[in-house]
Amino acid sequence: MTREPTTPRPLTVAILTASDLGVRGERADTSGDAIESWCRARGYEVVARTVVPDETAAIVPVLLDWSDRLDAHVILTTGGTGFTARDVTPEATLAVLDGEAPGLAEALRARGALKTPYSNLSRGVAGFRGGTVIVNFPGSTGGVRDGLDVLDPVLEHAVELSRGTSVSHAPRTSAAP
Amino acid sequence: MTREPTTPRPLTVAILTASDLGVRGERADTSGDAIESWCRARGYEVVARTVVPDETAAIVPVLLDWSDRLDAHVILTTGGTGFTARDVTPEATLAVLDGEAPGLAEALRARGALKTPYSNLSRGVAGFRGGTVIVNFPGSTGGVRDGLDVLDPVLEHAVELSRGTSVSHAPRTSAAP
Amino acid sequence: MTREPTTPRPLTVAILTASDLGVRGERADTSGDAIESWCRARGYEVVARTVVPDETAAIVPVLLDWSDRLDAHVILTTGGTGFTARDVTPEATLAVLDGEAPGLAEALRARGALKTPYSNLSRGVAGFRGGTVIVNFPGSTGGVRDGLDVLDPVLEHAVELSRGTSVSHAPRTSAAP
Repeated sequence: MTREPTTPRPLTVAILTASDLGVRGERADTSGDAIESWCRARGYEVVARTVVPDETAAIVPVLLDWSDRLDAHVILTTGGTGFTARDVTPEATLAVLDGEAPGLAEALRARGALKTPYSNLSRGVAGFRGGTVIVNFPGSTGGVRDGLDVLDPVLEHAVELSRGTSVSHAPRTSAAP
Repeated sequence: MTREPTTPRPLTVAILTASDLGVRGERADTSGDAIESWCRARGYEVVARTVVPDETAAIVPVLLDWSDRLDAHVILTTGGTGFTARDVTPEATLAVLDGEAPGLAEALRARGALKTPYSNLSRGVAGFRGGTVIVNFPGSTGGVRDGLDVLDPVLEHAVELSRGTSVSHAPRTSAAP
Repeated sequence: MTREPTTPRPLTVAILTASDLGVRGERADTSGDAIESWCRARGYEVVARTVVPDETAAIVPVLLDWSDRLDAHVILTTGGTGFTARDVTPEATLAVLDGEAPGLAEALRARGALKTPYSNLSRGVAGFRGGTVIVNFPGSTGGVRDGLDVLDPVLEHAVELSRGTSVSHAPRTSAAP
């Protein structure tokens, strides 16, 4: 790729916390805080942030709004990746993705597993919808930090891929259905 | 998570071997034996065990019965994860899962690949249905042993996650559809 | 497995490059060249090779023709695994697979990640359709070389699995639906 990179700056990031306890005010959103701090330290703009219950009907509309209307470059979610009937963040995310990027989810789990084998229990997924990169982090602050470490060297390139190339090579008028 | 863990003890495990040769008595179920020995060594109760042909119509009803009626904490399968039209265990398992847990399958393959690159050819999946954790092992005894090594430090926590939290935080009356 | 292996020799390989630039003649197909050189060095027969645009409607018919009519042992694709609306090779491949083999895709990304974290952005998948093993490589020549390194020790065995056992144990008359 010798073409000029077209990374949008500053990157815009939206943060979604799925947590029944959080939405009832019974648990502080320390994981969302960790993501927001990381964004600010890197000069990214946090354009939206909210806490919703662990329900598909609560998660999907937020993901759609932030990708289609707000056109955020990145959506990072935390929570809802476990093993109960209330853990629906991966399925809600898959429902809105145009394409899945399993490698990001694999790398998150592999990184976390260097510290704890429980990392392999996270069911998070990743991918893109339009020009928005979406990644699920686990609900724990430690899991979030591992995830941010993995995204650190690749996130801007992922956004370039989802925006730059599509702008250069897929003009709307010639796009396949 | 400072809440009291609610690990059921003893864990109940059901063992399903998918093997055309096995069901015809042409191959001893040494892989199922390896799983059962491991369960007994750990104090888990083996509540069901059977050998079925490599057919979706034979595998799915057993998985449904053991999860929905028997309510086993864990179902471990062996066999049927290869590359032929008869290898349908992953697809049969996906058909009954409420949620997929790709990290367990990834970890199984990565562990096995330390010994043989053929480990990467296993197509096994993992996840949960209700409060039952389901994991596909390959058909070989070596593959089963690698899989058990991976589950060893996480299986009880996976069962806690699928049972404990759902009991505390997802009362039937307020659950989302 | 004590049965006689039935590896077909020489293996037949078909090479599909998905590239909007390539099909317009604006980019040389160096990735396809790298795959073809590797095949020749190993004594495999390259039975088909083409470059198509990054469109599902262009990719799917080629995969179907090469697997169902040409009955190639292996189809290797390069390109179309990125994050834009034009990157549809993984979805086109999933549409034709009888069974997914996520371990091959995981191993490709993990191998590539030893050199560059961007490897985790490849969305490639792998699996089989009938007796044809299909693997997506990324579009970069480096990504292709990493992928070939991973396939090197397992590809012949994967073909054996998809052909040998199905011939011995899945006679058409007794196959499950």
